[in-house]
Amino acid sequence: MGHPISRYPVPSLADLDDDIRRRILEVQEKAGFVPNVFLTLAHRPDEFRAFFAYHDALMDKEGGLSKAEREMIVVATSGANDCLYCVVAHGAILRIYAKNPRVADQVAVNYRKAEITPRQKAMLAFALKVATDSAALEDGDYDAARRHGFTDEDIWDIGAIAAFFAMSNRIANLIAMRPNDEFYLMGRVPREKK
Amino acid sequence: MGHPISRYPVPSLADLDDDIRRRILEVQEKAGFVPNVFLTLAHRPDEFRAFFAYHDALMDKEGGLSKAEREMIVVATSGANDCLYCVVAHGAILRIYAKNPRVADQVAVNYRKAEITPRQKAMLAFALKVATDSAALEDGDYDAARRHGFTDEDIWDIGAIAAFFAMSNRIANLIAMRPNDEFYLMGRVPREKK
Amino acid sequence: MGHPISRYPVPSLADLDDDIRRRILEVQEKAGFVPNVFLTLAHRPDEFRAFFAYHDALMDKEGGLSKAEREMIVVATSGANDCLYCVVAHGAILRIYAKNPRVADQVAVNYRKAEITPRQKAMLAFALKVATDSAALEDGDYDAARRHGFTDEDIWDIGAIAAFFAMSNRIANLIAMRPNDEFYLMGRVPREKK
Amino acid sequence: MGHPISRYPVPSLADLDDDIRRRILEVQEKAGFVPNVFLTLAHRPDEFRAFFAYHDALMDKEGGLSKAEREMIVVATSGANDCLYCVVAHGAILRIYAKNPRVADQVAVNYRKAEITPRQKAMLAFALKVATDSAALEDGDYDAARRHGFTDEDIWDIGAIAAFFAMSNRIANLIAMRPNDEFYLMGRVPREKK
Amino acid sequence: MGHPISRYPVPSLADLDDDIRRRILEVQEKAGFVPNVFLTLAHRPDEFRAFFAYHDALMDKEGGLSKAEREMIVVATSGANDCLYCVVAHGAILRIYAKNPRVADQVAVNYRKAEITPRQKAMLAFALKVATDSAALEDGDYDAARRHGFTDEDIWDIGAIAAFFAMSNRIANLIAMRPNDEFYLMGRVPREKK
Amino acid sequence: MGHPISRYPVPSLADLDDDIRRRILEVQEKAGFVPNVFLTLAHRPDEFRAFFAYHDALMDKEGGLSKAEREMIVVATSGANDCLYCVVAHGAILRIYAKNPRVADQVAVNYRKAEITPRQKAMLAFALKVATDSAALEDGDYDAARRHGFTDEDIWDIGAIAAFFAMSNRIANLIAMRPNDEFYLMGRVPREKK
Repeated sequence: MGHPISRYPVPSLADLDDDIRRRILEVQEKAGFVPNVFLTLAHRPDEFRAFFAYHDALMDKEGGLSKAEREMIVVATSGANDCLYCVVAHGAILRIYAKNPRVADQVAVNYRKAEITPRQKAMLAFALKVATDSAALEDGDYDAARRHGFTDEDIWDIGAIAAFFAMSNRIANLIAMRPNDEFYLMGRVPREKK
Repeated sequence: MGHPISRYPVPSLADLDDDIRRRILEVQEKAGFVPNVFLTLAHRPDEFRAFFAYHDALMDKEGGLSKAEREMIVVATSGANDCLYCVVAHGAILRIYAKNPRVADQVAVNYRKAEITPRQKAMLAFALKVATDSAALEDGDYDAARRHGFTDEDIWDIGAIAAFFAMSNRIANLIAMRPNDEFYLMGRVPREKK
Repeated sequence: MGHPISRYPVPSLADLDDDIRRRILEVQEKAGFVPNVFLTLAHRPDEFRAFFAYHDALMDKEGGLSKAEREMIVVATSGANDCLYCVVAHGAILRIYAKNPRVADQVAVNYRKAEITPRQKAMLAFALKVATDSAALEDGDYDAARRHGFTDEDIWDIGAIAAFFAMSNRIANLIAMRPNDEFYLMGRVPREKK
Repeated sequence: MGHPISRYPVPSLADLDDDIRRRILEVQEKAGFVPNVFLTLAHRPDEFRAFFAYHDALMDKEGGLSKAEREMIVVATSGANDCLYCVVAHGAILRIYAKNPRVADQVAVNYRKAEITPRQKAMLAFALKVATDSAALEDGDYDAARRHGFTDEDIWDIGAIAAFFAMSNRIANLIAMRPNDEFYLMGRVPREKK
Repeated sequence: MGHPISRYPVPSLADLDDDIRRRILEVQEKAGFVPNVFLTLAHRPDEFRAFFAYHDALMDKEGGLSKAEREMIVVATSGANDCLYCVVAHGAILRIYAKNPRVADQVAVNYRKAEITPRQKAMLAFALKVATDSAALEDGDYDAARRHGFTDEDIWDIGAIAAFFAMSNRIANLIAMRPNDEFYLMGRVPREKK
Repeated sequence: MGHPISRYPVPSLADLDDDIRRRILEVQEKAGFVPNVFLTLAHRPDEFRAFFAYHDALMDKEGGLSKAEREMIVVATSGANDCLYCVVAHGAILRIYAKNPRVADQVAVNYRKAEITPRQKAMLAFALKVATDSAALEDGDYDAARRHGFTDEDIWDIGAIAAFFAMSNRIANLIAMRPNDEFYLMGRVPREKK
């Protein structure tokens, strides 16, 4: 295609520190390819380590939010920030977790029209306020989330995921991170049963 | 699914005037299903006729813009207006015309990062100014488009398509028009050769 | 004056198709002059036909909105879009229908301060949301309109007029359509009785 | 009409201090009526005196800007601030000074489309930046104005008028100051010669 | 420092009219230095007189707002307008009146997080609406302020102070008025008792 | 004061894991107090570790940006995001690194008026675009930074710091993190020489 995956140099696997290479090989094993966020951020090893430690702390934990709901937050706020990499890559993950081939496109464009529950719409309303106008957060916003059954710890999760991807989106835009072609189709076609 | 395709009543084919029913049957014949915009707008027959007459005058004509380029304008401006129906439905059409399974998602999120030509980026910059700040259009905007080889008639087309979908997006949002499930996958998987 | 009425060529009456020339002569007969929207859009005959078919379907129909109210929507949303042609031309028509020489200037600048009813203010609040933030429309907006007695069909009319002039405003700005001098004074001075 | 001219009490002429009453009678003598800004601000005598002293210092002085140009700044920035009183009242004054019945409506909606000189458009571009984004003023803005022949003192005038009406517009909106009916027609009809 | 205190010439005390020089010497006597607003505005004597007459009418009067509360309005709205001079100079005055070394920084950045009363937060919410969106003021805004015990005259004060500094901020930005170094520390360190 | 330092529970030192307690005691040793960001984020140990690992990777590294310049980016972007904690805490650090008691207040309000170099203004212009409109970043933005001598690695640093504090600001706003009283005065008074 000729479009580079980053404005910055992308290291080869051989040149990476062991822990970073191991992480990348693990994700390749699991996904079948290496998402570009791993290769492009590896240009800065310390930032790479902190980035994925933070990501895992927020996205791989147990708690009141399902994995699909966490990804919904990512896709909705990345849509608001016009971040191509995050909308496409996390859209793929959302489709898989939610087992719904339409929900990612819906949430990226306008969550109010998405095939999701009222509780999930309240979650995204809170997340989008964190993403776009966090200084104006006030008691009423927390109360609205609590009325849908979210605990205060859930609300931290919602807000922290929106905050983490406020950073991710800006880094992806900064380095013009390109989504892998594989993401566009993932989760859209039912897997054949074996 | 339980999600209606419109906030308003949707007429049955049998109740429609002949010319409207004929148009709907033609599109069904061609696409294999009836896009919801035809069914939902048929609630208002005179508006239906004017809407599609206008659409065809802008989208089906000859001229300096390819069919894929016309659809790019639709998808980019509909993304800016957060219109789910238009992003999903015209995204499908764009993928097919452009023979590119990624370009619609790219243009809907951020045309600056899309796999398109500099000329197409200039076209979308002009279209987005019409969509979001038309009162500020000035000579420099027309000159920038001309420098990429667009004629004045091409520029009318670019602006008029952006204007027409400024209307379409608002009507779709007004009636909460739901995209057909079929659109989400169209143009994403290479057709099998027979 | 030296200011052209369009950035694009304006056809002469003699060169127009019969149906378009007839429409123009009719409006000239009725108004005493030809509003520039007819001459400038005639550069594109098919778009001209669809434009006025759509306009008439929305503005000349029966229904819960008076003709003055329909024009109020045009003037308020055109003010929000900074469209000179539409504010001036439809301001004139609004003054005549409303038999009020002040209401158009009021509605164009700030409908909250206009000499109109609370019901009309609710109508314009809905129309302006369609004009400026249609993706955020939600049940509460429709309920607010219903509380003032608008039916769902009235609400379609309100929204569709706002949507149609979202297009009109952008086309007028695109081609720099100039309002006829006649409009500025129309409806401001009481007609002499004969 | 039933619409009060202010949200606040309006003093009667008899209750005013001599200097304020004298000023009001003078303007009545000259204009044939008392503009509501005089009556409504008289509720606060000290603010009234400072307001008009400031107004006169900026609007009645000699300098590189004509009286019509000063009023253009008022109308354009008041349009941007959606201030009904100032658009209508100063629109009337602008029409009279400019001897042009159309220019006020043009400048209030979109100065780019107005029948004014390129120098006047540059003046209004500077004024609108002061009105809407003064923190971003930079050397280039002053240079652009100087290129059209404005001196640094002219630029102070342009900016200070925009600043003064940033205040005026907000006060008028605060107290819901209603424009006198007389203003709407002033300067629109050629005076009969005697 | 090399940074001038204004883009415009600053007159020397000797060249000023008596009344202006007297005012400046008075403030110097009281504050120990001459705030730059006095020196820079003295370039335009008539505007200087009106400016300070207006300032005094709003800031030095008796009424329902304490002196600290008036300065809070100045600091909060000047923060919203990104006016360096007003945030720094009035921040100093606010710290002194409020006898709180933190409150000015808090109010300048985000009044919702400041160590102030709910009544003061309601005051600042009203003031900020006047500063940033006065055309949208409606009955509900006045009612919200009244519920916190503000009289209608207090509300005029709140709004008029916000309006006056809408002007001040723009003038300070226009002439790039530099705050005196003295202001930065004033009110931050407890005065030694004698 | 009665204002809690977080909306969430704050763990006591005794309850913390060793590595976190050690980090907190180190900073206390160095600063003389524990900045609230350490105590409030300790509620989530894994996020705490990732947060400070990321912070250190960006703020404590060698490179083309001085420590003062890195803090300028933090203060300017936190000002744009209205984040009280970050403006106050990092403002203190900036004053100390820059050995300038005024620069933090200047940069927080309007960097264009700050006592900094043209190169630093270009750095902040880039950082603010990352903070507020990263999707619109284009070649010209990078070129503008390069013209001031920034390398591509410096530009990554500028953008990544702006991105990291886009996250920090949102987390601080989410939990209503209160700045320690100590920060307000730090770096404002020259240290006495011993």
